[in-house]
Amino acid sequence: MQYIDMETLKYLLFEVQDTERVLEFPRHEAFDKEAINMLLDSVKDFGDQDLYPIFKEMDENPARYEDGTIVTHPKLGELMRKAAELGLISDTFDEKFGGMQVPYTAHTAMGLILDAANNQAPGYWLLTQGAADLIVHFGSEELQQTYVPNMMAGEWGGTMALTEPQAGSSLSDIKTSATPQEDGSYKIKGHKIFISGGDHQHVDNIVHLLLARIDGAPTGTKGISLFVVPKNRITPDGLVPNDVITAGDFEKMGQKGYCTTHLVFGDKDDCKAWLVGEPHQGLKYMFKMMNGARIDVGRGANAITHAAYHASLKYANERPQGRPIQNAGKKDASQEPVLIINHPDVRRMLLLQKAIAEASTSLIFEAALYHDIEMNSQDPEEKGKYHLLLELLTPIVKTYPSEMGRIAVNNGLQVLGGYGFCSDFILQQYYRDIRIFSIYEGTTGIQSIDLLGRKLTMEQGKAMKLLAGEMKNVIEDAMAIEELRPYGKQLLEKLELNKEVMTYLMNFAMKGDYQRFLSDATIFMEFFGTIIIGWQWLKIAVKAKQSLLTGDNSHKVDFFQSKIHTMKFFYKYEMPRTTGLAEILTDETVLTLPNEEEVFA
Amino acid sequence: MQYIDMETLKYLLFEVQDTERVLEFPRHEAFDKEAINMLLDSVKDFGDQDLYPIFKEMDENPARYEDGTIVTHPKLGELMRKAAELGLISDTFDEKFGGMQVPYTAHTAMGLILDAANNQAPGYWLLTQGAADLIVHFGSEELQQTYVPNMMAGEWGGTMALTEPQAGSSLSDIKTSATPQEDGSYKIKGHKIFISGGDHQHVDNIVHLLLARIDGAPTGTKGISLFVVPKNRITPDGLVPNDVITAGDFEKMGQKGYCTTHLVFGDKDDCKAWLVGEPHQGLKYMFKMMNGARIDVGRGANAITHAAYHASLKYANERPQGRPIQNAGKKDASQEPVLIINHPDVRRMLLLQKAIAEASTSLIFEAALYHDIEMNSQDPEEKGKYHLLLELLTPIVKTYPSEMGRIAVNNGLQVLGGYGFCSDFILQQYYRDIRIFSIYEGTTGIQSIDLLGRKLTMEQGKAMKLLAGEMKNVIEDAMAIEELRPYGKQLLEKLELNKEVMTYLMNFAMKGDYQRFLSDATIFMEFFGTIIIGWQWLKIAVKAKQSLLTGDNSHKVDFFQSKIHTMKFFYKYEMPRTTGLAEILTDETVLTLPNEEEVFA
Repeated sequence: MQYIDMETLKYLLFEVQDTERVLEFPRHEAFDKEAINMLLDSVKDFGDQDLYPIFKEMDENPARYEDGTIVTHPKLGELMRKAAELGLISDTFDEKFGGMQVPYTAHTAMGLILDAANNQAPGYWLLTQGAADLIVHFGSEELQQTYVPNMMAGEWGGTMALTEPQAGSSLSDIKTSATPQEDGSYKIKGHKIFISGGDHQHVDNIVHLLLARIDGAPTGTKGISLFVVPKNRITPDGLVPNDVITAGDFEKMGQKGYCTTHLVFGDKDDCKAWLVGEPHQGLKYMFKMMNGARIDVGRGANAITHAAYHASLKYANERPQGRPIQNAGKKDASQEPVLIINHPDVRRMLLLQKAIAEASTSLIFEAALYHDIEMNSQDPEEKGKYHLLLELLTPIVKTYPSEMGRIAVNNGLQVLGGYGFCSDFILQQYYRDIRIFSIYEGTTGIQSIDLLGRKLTMEQGKAMKLLAGEMKNVIEDAMAIEELRPYGKQLLEKLELNKEVMTYLMNFAMKGDYQRFLSDATIFMEFFGTIIIGWQWLKIAVKAKQSLLTGDNSHKVDFFQSKIHTMKFFYKYEMPRTTGLAEILTDETVLTLPNEEEVFA
Repeated sequence: MQYIDMETLKYLLFEVQDTERVLEFPRHEAFDKEAINMLLDSVKDFGDQDLYPIFKEMDENPARYEDGTIVTHPKLGELMRKAAELGLISDTFDEKFGGMQVPYTAHTAMGLILDAANNQAPGYWLLTQGAADLIVHFGSEELQQTYVPNMMAGEWGGTMALTEPQAGSSLSDIKTSATPQEDGSYKIKGHKIFISGGDHQHVDNIVHLLLARIDGAPTGTKGISLFVVPKNRITPDGLVPNDVITAGDFEKMGQKGYCTTHLVFGDKDDCKAWLVGEPHQGLKYMFKMMNGARIDVGRGANAITHAAYHASLKYANERPQGRPIQNAGKKDASQEPVLIINHPDVRRMLLLQKAIAEASTSLIFEAALYHDIEMNSQDPEEKGKYHLLLELLTPIVKTYPSEMGRIAVNNGLQVLGGYGFCSDFILQQYYRDIRIFSIYEGTTGIQSIDLLGRKLTMEQGKAMKLLAGEMKNVIEDAMAIEELRPYGKQLLEKLELNKEVMTYLMNFAMKGDYQRFLSDATIFMEFFGTIIIGWQWLKIAVKAKQSLLTGDNSHKVDFFQSKIHTMKFFYKYEMPRTTGLAEILTDETVLTLPNEEEVFA
């Protein structure tokens, strides 16, 4: 099933991004390129056989609240166990936890395939993995032994329980309380909402990694602790309910098969919890995982973008409609209609999707690679470098695939005309599903403030200097190839433009006017993200052109040429938009800061 | 209920657009401004009492196919009769048909209110009106007497039956056949799909205005005729089935309460039809109505944009979350959270919606006004002028509110964060509903080719010269007011930029390379549409500023100032995007024309 192009995925992973470099680290030495590719193929088989076939069903029969629990797709339990057997829940974990010690780059590629096949089902076990990861990193030996094995087996679920009704984007307002007990445990009281995978009928237990405030803790983010709160307590007599009540499931516009629960903890004063790590360090622990979680969100959106692209490409290759415009500007109605892929506007809509989908994947892999190097490197300088690069890229990796992916999918739907709007075709589901990704794990507004207000300024702009260095390496390579020189030049100009914009904006920060500095952060994200994707496309095109020049026959000539063509498309149709965006960003008019004026009158 | 701001609507209708001018024509002399405003208020009451209350229900209980017919919302029949009583089906019709002879501008304002209250229910009677309008304009006296009265009474429905499975955007491929009978009638055979309001339980009969090909007719668009095909034939013994079978209802992502049917005509060779007007003139008749139909689509999208804006504005004024960024770049967690309307990014998202919604309305009213002048004027030159202006504006009036309205609604949803994605909140419905408007009545791609390939070139570019004249009038007014001068100047520069882009593109047409000329038509639409909306905002701001300068107290000072503020917002955040778009349009690289290259490899 063509929801993702495996050839391109592997090309981006191993040819464009140097993932083999990671396989040299001792932790991953069991793997070579071939082993990773085999893993990817087995994941694709799983997607073809098990995930894609129930994708539409999950939308048409949404998760629903029934008798105090959530009823999800009947096959979900089977899938979780199969995912566990394939090693997909424990893939990145240490061997001592039954893991494969797969690098995060490979894990990300696997996740991309899974999400493209079905952007909902894998969430159940990937969140379980994330929850177990927190226990493994920060929890006691006892917590690890108690919870991790069943989670790895797909027998128990796991969640991240952060959001509360009054604390969405603003985690400092978390109110859920934790009261110390004599036995060293805590009692939890509070409401959590929007908890993905928060409850369902297919697991014996659900392990919530929950943020709460220990009685007397400082206000704000510094007083938040992380707890393990199981739905059922483990006792010598077996599992006993732990006063975690499922109060409801949020019905949603998309991702309908992926439940989003409202949980009530401690309504009967009998909800026990165990502290993870030190008190008041909860947000710090959570944020250690946050880069990964945000990359995963970008990956999820990107997966949908690939799937939508391939669905619309297939349609365009099968649907006859209309005729080419003749040179006189007329059409000849006596001719047979052509396939719509021959219409320039349809080609533009397809190429835009391809341009957004493939370079986003490349960027996601680049970030995953940085993560792997940071985690594995023994060289403090290298570690520091990739840490900074990853910090800088993360908000973009989360946001570009989500925001531009939505625009790509919108183009995919449009390719189908009226059928795109109809439930019989899959595009409308992708269109609905992808909408949440600009909200998940910090909205676009939050990511943009993080990018401009924190990442670009940290350590006196060191991350940006490092990133510019990475970009200049690619530009240098491009400059050495005649066909690519104009694009290298263009990227260099955009880097200069970015410097001008940054200088203009930083001026406000230096004057202490942070509100103004950050007021157009979202526009800056659009601007900077486009340049970053331009960098990725140039990187892809350099590789492809080098292969063509050296007669590399690992792929067909068409394959390499289509990459170069899509790069040119991006440089024609997307990069120039940054000119207008730079104008907006350096316009001195202030129109969005709150003041006495009634601007919405 | 605040799904539309009536003060703004009336302001745009009577102060910004000179609708009173139309009321001087003999046809409309029964109306003055006050009478129109009373009509608008009564429509708002209808919306508040009857339409808005069932809006969400219509989504949650979609129209469905059952036992050979379509079951729609139980109240729909009552609503159609009430709409008839209020004169909403016959409003624009001659008095002899029971109509009020309401000008199209006022009709458009009424429709905007109706659609904002409920973008689905009014479609049933507005399409009935459109079908009756075709009969009135082109049908015989007998057809008029037979069908129009029951349609006006809301007892019978009406549809436009154009699309066929193999003929979506390409009407020249229509295959439905019409075989002449001895009694002067025809027998119809064929399938029609995507027929809005094609069948439902609340009317005794449905009158299809159907395009078909008389046996032996020329191929292409020149062989298409227009017919009246009732679901039930009128006989002395009453209504008798006319072999029109409802084969199904298309399930859709949005507008779920507005049925979209598949109809089979003449499966038993017993489907009788009556020719409207002359043979082979069907498409010409249809296109006489098409400007109106396209403006109506723009209006529908614009109505949703208003409703979404007000829903998100209300939320932003009620939801506390987060704190302002202090001058040191920090937040003070001990402060109470502020209402999110105080966050610059939220204000930006709200102002973008307001900027798109209000100027689109102004543009729609401007087009409606042109229509009224063209229809009523006795001066051939004036008639010709407004005909050309309307022809030029129509594709933009259809497209800008649909494409940019979608982006506006997307911002509205984002204002609500996670709740925006949840079915308990209305934003997600607006988000789904508005998606069809870029497809209805000619997709954005089709409209864009119409704009660039036909409208801008017709009569040696005369329409564009006339439009530039209209725009320069506004620029001149702006130049006379110090505060507005920079914006007048900017619009003038954009007009110049447009000239440069047009010159560049026309060059391809003159060389006969129409494929290249039109290949980026959709980008041109984005470019040109933005400038047109810039013109509308300047027009609104000129009026508002003139009122402030003359101490006009017909509205509050805040009201006028908010219009000027929103104009400035548009000129800061939207107009500069045209710089990048012009770069794209004048880039010489050719990347979307079909050739031998496998660009999707």
